Amino acid sequence: MNILSRHLPILEWGRTYDRTVLSNDLMAAVIVTIMLIPQSLAYALLAGLPPVVGLYASILPLVFYAIFGTSRTLAVGPVAVVSLMTASAAGAVADQGTAQYLEAAITLAALSGIMLAILGLLRAGFLANLLSHPVISGFITASGILIATSQLKHILGVQAGGDNWPDMLASLASAIVDTNPWTLAVGIPATLFLFWVRKGAKPALQVIGLPKRAAEMTAKAGPVAAVALTILAVLAFDLDGRGVNLVGAIPQGLPPFAVPSTDLSLIEKLWVPALLISIIGFVESVSVAQTLAAKRRQRITPDQELIGLGAANIASAFSGGYPVTGGFARSAVNFDAGAQTPAAGAYTAIGIALATLFLTPLLFSLPVATLAATIIVAVLSLVDLKTPGRLWRYSKADFAAHAATIGITLWAGVELGVIAGVAVGLLLYLWRASRPHAAIVGRVPETEHFRNVDRHRVFTVPHVLSIRIDESLTYLNARWLEEYVLERVAERPKLRHVILMCSAVNEIDASGLESLEAINHRLADGNIGLHLSEVKGPVTDRLKRTHFLDDLHGRIYLSQDRAFVELAKDDGLDTAPIDDLARGMI
Amino acid sequence: MNILSRHLPILEWGRTYDRTVLSNDLMAAVIVTIMLIPQSLAYALLAGLPPVVGLYASILPLVFYAIFGTSRTLAVGPVAVVSLMTASAAGAVADQGTAQYLEAAITLAALSGIMLAILGLLRAGFLANLLSHPVISGFITASGILIATSQLKHILGVQAGGDNWPDMLASLASAIVDTNPWTLAVGIPATLFLFWVRKGAKPALQVIGLPKRAAEMTAKAGPVAAVALTILAVLAFDLDGRGVNLVGAIPQGLPPFAVPSTDLSLIEKLWVPALLISIIGFVESVSVAQTLAAKRRQRITPDQELIGLGAANIASAFSGGYPVTGGFARSAVNFDAGAQTPAAGAYTAIGIALATLFLTPLLFSLPVATLAATIIVAVLSLVDLKTPGRLWRYSKADFAAHAATIGITLWAGVELGVIAGVAVGLLLYLWRASRPHAAIVGRVPETEHFRNVDRHRVFTVPHVLSIRIDESLTYLNARWLEEYVLERVAERPKLRHVILMCSAVNEIDASGLESLEAINHRLADGNIGLHLSEVKGPVTDRLKRTHFLDDLHGRIYLSQDRAFVELAKDDGLDTAPIDDLARGMI
Repeated sequence: MNILSRHLPILEWGRTYDRTVLSNDLMAAVIVTIMLIPQSLAYALLAGLPPVVGLYASILPLVFYAIFGTSRTLAVGPVAVVSLMTASAAGAVADQGTAQYLEAAITLAALSGIMLAILGLLRAGFLANLLSHPVISGFITASGILIATSQLKHILGVQAGGDNWPDMLASLASAIVDTNPWTLAVGIPATLFLFWVRKGAKPALQVIGLPKRAAEMTAKAGPVAAVALTILAVLAFDLDGRGVNLVGAIPQGLPPFAVPSTDLSLIEKLWVPALLISIIGFVESVSVAQTLAAKRRQRITPDQELIGLGAANIASAFSGGYPVTGGFARSAVNFDAGAQTPAAGAYTAIGIALATLFLTPLLFSLPVATLAATIIVAVLSLVDLKTPGRLWRYSKADFAAHAATIGITLWAGVELGVIAGVAVGLLLYLWRASRPHAAIVGRVPETEHFRNVDRHRVFTVPHVLSIRIDESLTYLNARWLEEYVLERVAERPKLRHVILMCSAVNEIDASGLESLEAINHRLADGNIGLHLSEVKGPVTDRLKRTHFLDDLHGRIYLSQDRAFVELAKDDGLDTAPIDDLARGMI
Repeated sequence: MNILSRHLPILEWGRTYDRTVLSNDLMAAVIVTIMLIPQSLAYALLAGLPPVVGLYASILPLVFYAIFGTSRTLAVGPVAVVSLMTASAAGAVADQGTAQYLEAAITLAALSGIMLAILGLLRAGFLANLLSHPVISGFITASGILIATSQLKHILGVQAGGDNWPDMLASLASAIVDTNPWTLAVGIPATLFLFWVRKGAKPALQVIGLPKRAAEMTAKAGPVAAVALTILAVLAFDLDGRGVNLVGAIPQGLPPFAVPSTDLSLIEKLWVPALLISIIGFVESVSVAQTLAAKRRQRITPDQELIGLGAANIASAFSGGYPVTGGFARSAVNFDAGAQTPAAGAYTAIGIALATLFLTPLLFSLPVATLAATIIVAVLSLVDLKTPGRLWRYSKADFAAHAATIGITLWAGVELGVIAGVAVGLLLYLWRASRPHAAIVGRVPETEHFRNVDRHRVFTVPHVLSIRIDESLTYLNARWLEEYVLERVAERPKLRHVILMCSAVNEIDASGLESLEAINHRLADGNIGLHLSEVKGPVTDRLKRTHFLDDLHGRIYLSQDRAFVELAKDDGLDTAPIDDLARGMI
């Protein structure tokens, strides 16, 4: 594959594009468009931006992802968690509703797009590995709780604030006396309706005679129905005059040409959140894309995905949008509706553009409470209460990373939450890596196998110590290795030979080598030999480029068994206890 | 061992203290005291502090290390690299010679002491592992170059500055025209004499009849001879009047009671350098202590060493000193001179205290150039020019970390240098950990061994794929595992069974488990079985606590051979090619 077609996947699928594919893609695009309109408005609200910004972020980014992305079915656009992170980052530099706030959001999209594209060109997708599953799921659960809580004020029709969960709850509690009953009368039914749509709509539609697939697709239009019904309710009962907060005028027309800020002091404040938005967005998007690709035995290329998402975010910035990424729900709908190529995303973009041109006047009377209900129902499905217990039972370290992420995200916000999760995960990993597993092994009678002396009945001799090291020797455990070996040696006064069984040693870095050299010198001082057995080919090749093998006060054996049998005979006694030895070795 | 004697090693060795040990310790203390006086003055100069501060830092810290430390022979006090780091950190908040500068140095000692003690109580000594050997040696080489360069101005008798190497060289180059010839006439011979003392003094003293050991010990007093000779030269030739910079009046008397600053804005600026000083100091000290302990088959406890060094630094802060740690040269002298317990350190402290009380007037006429010569000769031995080439040949990744540390330390200073070294080392480690080694294996004919198909002539069948994974399954490589397995499967349309050979898998964390589950589901969709072989006991125990084994579309086999033999028979054909199979399996 040449460089052009690696970075432009459209050249691949574009060649075989025919009428069948076109009609499948068009069908999926119609369904996703219907789903995406209320979602875009709602997530813009969550990000603290004018609703139309959500629509802008759902037009050009989709086209650019279609050109550069490798997933055939990923649907890109505003998503809940990234919207929350945008609100947090932009809120730190400007007040909601100001031009500076909008500029910060646009700049975040630009920075995030540039970072993603650079990471992609550097093939640095592996950085996303720093987010372990427990950290990601903890972060998503905590974000879901934060988002749902932040939307309650719209359901109640009150003013409330707070950047973290305790503040939000306190602010809500003190504002609850001002609850607007008319807003509540819209918000509660809308929320209940949307919850029902998620679970109950499909079976109900099948009962009234729709085929299964049609029922499934129709149910996805639930939010649109909620939008339409609540608009009608506003008009019918004059809710505008009764204090119900409405979306109001949305500017009509195609996205404007916007320019991100080049103010260095603003960029200095936004680059860390932009990096976190990039990584969280990338991880979410890649997980979705991989899951869907695997179902059709297709493949995605993570490094090229970085470039696709980077292009989408840069496009978002220049068309007045805010950070976007691949969303789970809408991608699944796109997939189920039969989308076959990224062109479906481009058609969706046309659908949203048409809505921006012609539909926005109809949304004037849409209650904000309806959008809040959409968000609450969407994010509560992200809250996963089973994972903590499962992790606790399986791995305390993973539980610690998960719990730290949830706790710090709720109490100190999304940015510190992610950073703390990564830091805790990494520290626990490094802690374990710094004290790896090793075992003293002996020979299983009547075999050539060597097993842990603590777990099996095996044969050993007092003047030979066989240590199996179950990890590569790197700088993280080099110090441990010295301590471990020398302590074991100190316990055994009769010792003449130490064999390090290296069957699980895939690498010895420079620090590991220095530790081996130190062990060799110290053992040599006590006239004890150091031998290595079962060293892998690539490891031996590298050791041969050093002085270590010349200085080694001992030998390298191909097999542990050979080493043990040969060294066991050298017990320093004149009369070798051949019989004993032979008995153990049969 | 109870908690008291674990944290107070003095209780251990104090019980067996007798007259022989006392006389050995006293002898060592005398020699170390003679060596330490010029060193303390010189390193205080390097740290930009009044010379007496170096003496203060060599009294109480030694006593507190003797109580809390675990090394029998470590000699604590001011050292070159930590002095340089102190100068860099204190210089960032105040000008040299001001009370604020001294306060910053004292506060650094207090912060560093508290951090070391806390790390010790948390048993977080493993954090020092983050500094790999290539990073440490790169840092020490670059520090040696920086320190030697910073002292050249004292040899030349000029004013020069600069925080990094290019600035230092530029500043020296423009100041060289002001060179004071009388200072040079002291500095050059002092430097040459001290270089000669290092190499040539011992043989020369033996030639004139001293026994080997006495010659060795007398040679260590070389710096004292340089001090005495240059003081005499100053007095004889009235060098004071000729512009030679002298140490001048040193306050007489015991260390004052000092109080570190509790100003939060100062602490905010100093905590990062204090942490770096703590870690670098700890690593240097522990390496020295371990090397010496091993020579006498003694042991040190790294976590208790943290507490010992923490106590020493807190004591330094409260007695007007600056950050201290265990030094290599003086510990080796202490060891060679026969020190047997930490009490030798306490006797050294008494020696230095006596010097502070009575000797300081004699040092009035000591040229600063002599101290600079002491420093230059001491640190140039730290510069290691062989390591870069050795690392380049052995491991490009280790070379990269080494080179980055040297380059960034020289060009951006000691703090950024250490941070960059740790970051580069960690990123390279994580990068490798995220794409571990794995191999497709086949059966070596006439054995039960399975080896890499690319390296050996082995037997395989097209409907069974055996993959040996040479690493624990953790979140860093979970994504890689999914990609690797699914790609290999996609290449093999006839496949019916995948066996993951887990002989090198020491751990499966929650992310690794999720990836195994995902692989299992995707293979099951394609009607391919997933089997594990040679799973270690502890790993199996943990897997049993999950649903994974119930959901597994396959089996766990104790041995890879058993798995292969059994699954190879299930090729989905009515007539099994038993003959072929049998041939490969003989």
